Amino acid sequence: MTDLAFQDYYPDDWAVCYGCGRLNERGLHIKSYWDGDESVCTFQPRPHHTAIPGFVYGGLIASVIDCHATGTASAAAYRAASRPLGSNPLLRFVTAALHVDYLCPTPLGPPLELRATLKEIKDRKVVVLVNLFASGELCAHGEVVCVQWPGRAAR
Amino acid sequence: MTDLAFQDYYPDDWAVCYGCGRLNERGLHIKSYWDGDESVCTFQPRPHHTAIPGFVYGGLIASVIDCHATGTASAAAYRAASRPLGSNPLLRFVTAALHVDYLCPTPLGPPLELRATLKEIKDRKVVVLVNLFASGELCAHGEVVCVQWPGRAAR
Repeated sequence: MTDLAFQDYYPDDWAVCYGCGRLNERGLHIKSYWDGDESVCTFQPRPHHTAIPGFVYGGLIASVIDCHATGTASAAAYRAASRPLGSNPLLRFVTAALHVDYLCPTPLGPPLELRATLKEIKDRKVVVLVNLFASGELCAHGEVVCVQWPGRAAR
Repeated sequence: MTDLAFQDYYPDDWAVCYGCGRLNERGLHIKSYWDGDESVCTFQPRPHHTAIPGFVYGGLIASVIDCHATGTASAAAYRAASRPLGSNPLLRFVTAALHVDYLCPTPLGPPLELRATLKEIKDRKVVVLVNLFASGELCAHGEVVCVQWPGRAAR
């Protein structure tokens, strides 16, 4: 793992995202890193991120899966092109579709560990699979379809 | 539409959800109502709920779809049983699976309108379809599988 997260390479105008933007003062500030062929993210839910007492809010789980996946998509596209992270022209991705299976209630307290792998990387589309663990237990699984931004029409 | 939202009938220990709990001081406080056979929710994103500048954060969209769906599932189960909302024994639902298609970038500024219909209501499972609009434009579509809580094993 490197010291800088994928999101630390985002340019300022891309760094305002509530989930992962370093410049969003009220945001979640999630950080993603390579660990071999997987990407990892550790996130500490706050006490107000609750669903029913004692369990993590499902919308927060969807949010961290989403941002970890789009960050991973960007990093994977740079890696596939053998280019340094953050180099121009920028390879930026947004979410086209997000699917989350909540396998069991996620306890609120321990940090969440997200580990992502690539299901598909092709042209301007990257599909990312994310497993979310709490205290080593698999609690949620996500599949995120990420597409490069801007689209062809907007270029 | 009635004056009280579905979520206003939740008992206190069920009202701490970050998305829809009236007792979560830092939460989103979404509110859902019947409008005929559809349920509706209007939510005003805050300026910090941004993805890239000018657009709503996808995790927030997933969150409001999620809570509007679980609220709708509960209300639909009461309606199917011809019982008053909030009456005991409680009919409470959590999310088993959440799918969101982001059809176009959602502009940050106007209130979001969510309109939900039932795809399936059977035993302890309710599947809810949600369309999310901004300024009348359909921006996202969700499908949420809601299951009654607690499960059979926990009863």
